[in-house]
Amino acid sequence: MNKYADFKVDAEADLYPTRVAGEQERWIERLDPVVWGDDHPTRHLTALDLESYARKGYLVKHGLFDRDEVSALRDAALALRQAAPRKLGPNVVREPGSGDLRTLFQLEQHHELFDRLSRSERVAGIARRILNDDVYLHQSRLNYKPGFTGKEFYWHSDFETWHAEDGMPRMRALSASVLLTDNDALNGPLMLMPGSHVHYVGCEGETPSNNYESSLKKQEIGTPSPKALDWMAREFGIDYASGKAGTVIFFDSNTIHGSNGNITPFPRSNAFFVFNAVSNQPCDPFAADDPRPEFLGNRSEFDALRIEDTPLK
Amino acid sequence: MNKYADFKVDAEADLYPTRVAGEQERWIERLDPVVWGDDHPTRHLTALDLESYARKGYLVKHGLFDRDEVSALRDAALALRQAAPRKLGPNVVREPGSGDLRTLFQLEQHHELFDRLSRSERVAGIARRILNDDVYLHQSRLNYKPGFTGKEFYWHSDFETWHAEDGMPRMRALSASVLLTDNDALNGPLMLMPGSHVHYVGCEGETPSNNYESSLKKQEIGTPSPKALDWMAREFGIDYASGKAGTVIFFDSNTIHGSNGNITPFPRSNAFFVFNAVSNQPCDPFAADDPRPEFLGNRSEFDALRIEDTPLK
Repeated sequence: MNKYADFKVDAEADLYPTRVAGEQERWIERLDPVVWGDDHPTRHLTALDLESYARKGYLVKHGLFDRDEVSALRDAALALRQAAPRKLGPNVVREPGSGDLRTLFQLEQHHELFDRLSRSERVAGIARRILNDDVYLHQSRLNYKPGFTGKEFYWHSDFETWHAEDGMPRMRALSASVLLTDNDALNGPLMLMPGSHVHYVGCEGETPSNNYESSLKKQEIGTPSPKALDWMAREFGIDYASGKAGTVIFFDSNTIHGSNGNITPFPRSNAFFVFNAVSNQPCDPFAADDPRPEFLGNRSEFDALRIEDTPLK
Repeated sequence: MNKYADFKVDAEADLYPTRVAGEQERWIERLDPVVWGDDHPTRHLTALDLESYARKGYLVKHGLFDRDEVSALRDAALALRQAAPRKLGPNVVREPGSGDLRTLFQLEQHHELFDRLSRSERVAGIARRILNDDVYLHQSRLNYKPGFTGKEFYWHSDFETWHAEDGMPRMRALSASVLLTDNDALNGPLMLMPGSHVHYVGCEGETPSNNYESSLKKQEIGTPSPKALDWMAREFGIDYASGKAGTVIFFDSNTIHGSNGNITPFPRSNAFFVFNAVSNQPCDPFAADDPRPEFLGNRSEFDALRIEDTPLK
């Protein structure tokens, strides 16, 4: 029985106001479920996984992809990093000095193996199970953080940006990061505040035009105040998500997260997918004049992903 | 029996050449002992401590200072951070924006409690035991790394700088960092490469004039190449030194270390002391035109510290 089967989004209602002119930061309790489905276990999700995800706002699944699959994904990632710039198009972020590829958006459109990864039962299937709806890709990317010079990424809730700038109405989305390299405490892992996802921080300040151009490098609008972060860090603590290549980290759209820089020689690479429920399609941005471009927030392809349960080889 | 009792430094001999004009990076095996004394345990050092320090190049001693002592040291640190600038003099590093105190040098000259800390059996006494000689302070400072914006510090061997710019002849010195705040994996802890201290990397590039003015913010001369660091990180791994306030981290002058930035809300503060053997007094710099100023490398006060074994209250 699906208690959210008849759930309809009222796209006009702004349940999570943020960046409102003249208003200060404010706290709003989450109005949406975290796990939208029931707690019956499935092949890749135990009842404990679901309970833990609901409570903490994230879940680390170790060893979802085996050695051969990781090897194939790494080869595909390397091929993309070495591809001629004209093949990849404009939606990339490159290193200022070397021109090396740091981020490639719309990853599933660039390589058949990453298309299959994005539709895998072990990635999209888990997202569909948690969100209890068909899912589509709101955003996707290949991330490559070099060793020695990896930069930090400051604390934020993804949903705050997706709501403000992409017009995503409700918290019925999540991210999945498929680790292509080993990640430990010291090479700039994803840090998360467990439990922060049940509080929404409506942020102070208005969205500048083309905010995404600077926020991809350093987010300054749409981050909680130091006071709010200090409170959350003391209340919830800070976890970090580590694991070997082949691990997948799932986290709720409203979980506060960030990462430190990385001076170790060990680079970090992952394939990153944002799944949104098809019932939660974006409308006009709630706090920006114009929506972000398609490669950052899909506004045209809402077909349910065809999920496949096959090895990636 | 002291097998190094008759050890004499030949101040003319450059056993560790570095930053030599026209020469590439080169590796030199360490010619000095790590633990200069025997392996008999003392009150604060077990035989295992000494063996571990010799092998890894560092030692973390938890709980050397109790809650009341930490509290007194924190009060003293706060008083110094709030002191009028004219009382502290010029040898400080302040935050660009706020003017807040980040580093105060010659710490033992600014507060009686830190003077006593620098001469404590639990700090200077352990240094003297490892170096097997009377010790004096080559440098000292109070470090305060704020939360949210703490910057990284890149990999380096202290000895390389002390040799090149301060004229320290041999590896008979060590650092002691007394933690005044709790330190974990995520708030920019000291990272060390265990075992790196037995290899010396003579660096490429010449020392610019007044190099210390920029190297205090970001060290660019006197760091091993990425290739060398990559090799060492793979060969030795990377540890981090964590502990509660009151912990003391001792590390050899040639252990490669660094720290990542810190976006967590939790600041880091420590009292930092560099002890040198009185038999290892600096001579002319081995790879710089002029020595660094006194507050960075003591060249005038070589009297043996009067070590005291009393509570700090």
